[in-house]
Amino acid sequence: MNREIPEFSLQRMPVYLNYLRTLPDDGTYNYISSGAIAQALGLGEVLVRKDLAYTGCAGRPKVGYPRAELISALENFLCVNDSKSAVIVGAGGLGSALLCYGGFSHYGIELACAFDNDPAKIGTTIGGKPVLPIDELNEGCKKYGATLAIIAVPASAAQQTAELLIKAGIKAILNFAPVQINTGDEIKVINIDVAANLAILASML
Amino acid sequence: MNREIPEFSLQRMPVYLNYLRTLPDDGTYNYISSGAIAQALGLGEVLVRKDLAYTGCAGRPKVGYPRAELISALENFLCVNDSKSAVIVGAGGLGSALLCYGGFSHYGIELACAFDNDPAKIGTTIGGKPVLPIDELNEGCKKYGATLAIIAVPASAAQQTAELLIKAGIKAILNFAPVQINTGDEIKVINIDVAANLAILASML
Repeated sequence: MNREIPEFSLQRMPVYLNYLRTLPDDGTYNYISSGAIAQALGLGEVLVRKDLAYTGCAGRPKVGYPRAELISALENFLCVNDSKSAVIVGAGGLGSALLCYGGFSHYGIELACAFDNDPAKIGTTIGGKPVLPIDELNEGCKKYGATLAIIAVPASAAQQTAELLIKAGIKAILNFAPVQINTGDEIKVINIDVAANLAILASML
Repeated sequence: MNREIPEFSLQRMPVYLNYLRTLPDDGTYNYISSGAIAQALGLGEVLVRKDLAYTGCAGRPKVGYPRAELISALENFLCVNDSKSAVIVGAGGLGSALLCYGGFSHYGIELACAFDNDPAKIGTTIGGKPVLPIDELNEGCKKYGATLAIIAVPASAAQQTAELLIKAGIKAILNFAPVQINTGDEIKVINIDVAANLAILASML
């Protein structure tokens, strides 16, 4: 689903959801206008209205969006209530940090386990999650019913890792290795190159 | 600089640079066409040509771009040869992983130090970088001449951290906290919400 929505609208959906979830529940924000959301997030009001229209939640003239309904609509849109399983390949610094991070559960995602090839790590748990040998990637992904994976291995191992993941039934990959991975059109990929993002910021100064 | 280029073109510049840097130096790739780059990176050829035009490096008809010149042009565009200093606030799992990551130097960026409020971490080094008390953020940023910062603190502390960084002269922030930070128009911000990106991928399936 969600293939008809422009990618940049889709990227803003968790931003709206995060923002609405953090507002106080004291009655002040039972309704919130597109203008108020736009101002809080530094976005244009028309853009906010267009984005939120994809969720099917309708704002009411002069009143705004009923916040609880809008949160539910965004949660449905992002499939937060469908539990999904993800694995991490690479239990180094970044992989370990992600294993210990609790934020995935806010989106109905459970990190099931990590895979690594370091004998010192295999058999341990990090953040309560088992670290399995990379040789068990195929059966591990299937055991946990994982459809999502995070690649947190060095660039030189990223392509091979992606191919193993796809063979194991993974449908979407968040790739932290600073290299392009070729996966074919059926697999969804988002790349996060931390150093490149800092370089982009530096070049904007 | 680089304010006239569309943001999405700018975001692709490190991708081109990474790709061109990884090609073998055996003479096969002394010249490379926009078509070959486009195919390798899964982009449109016209888009690649438009993006690369911003670097000032000209492709030659039927031959392509001289690769060494194109790499230099991209490096100049991304200011790779200007050394820049960055600090990290938050020496938890993610902050520690980034302190140990060597990839920033490929863009002329040096991570100078981290700041944290945990007495167990203050005074230690992580990845060879000192962890300083958060109280010394102002003088630390100035000592190292830092203009870039990475926020790797919990969401509840992100806004306050951003304000301290701006007071200390930071001009651009890479924000890993899953919350919007308000910085005013003069400060450049890129947000990386890892869980949200995984949720976006999940919603595309």
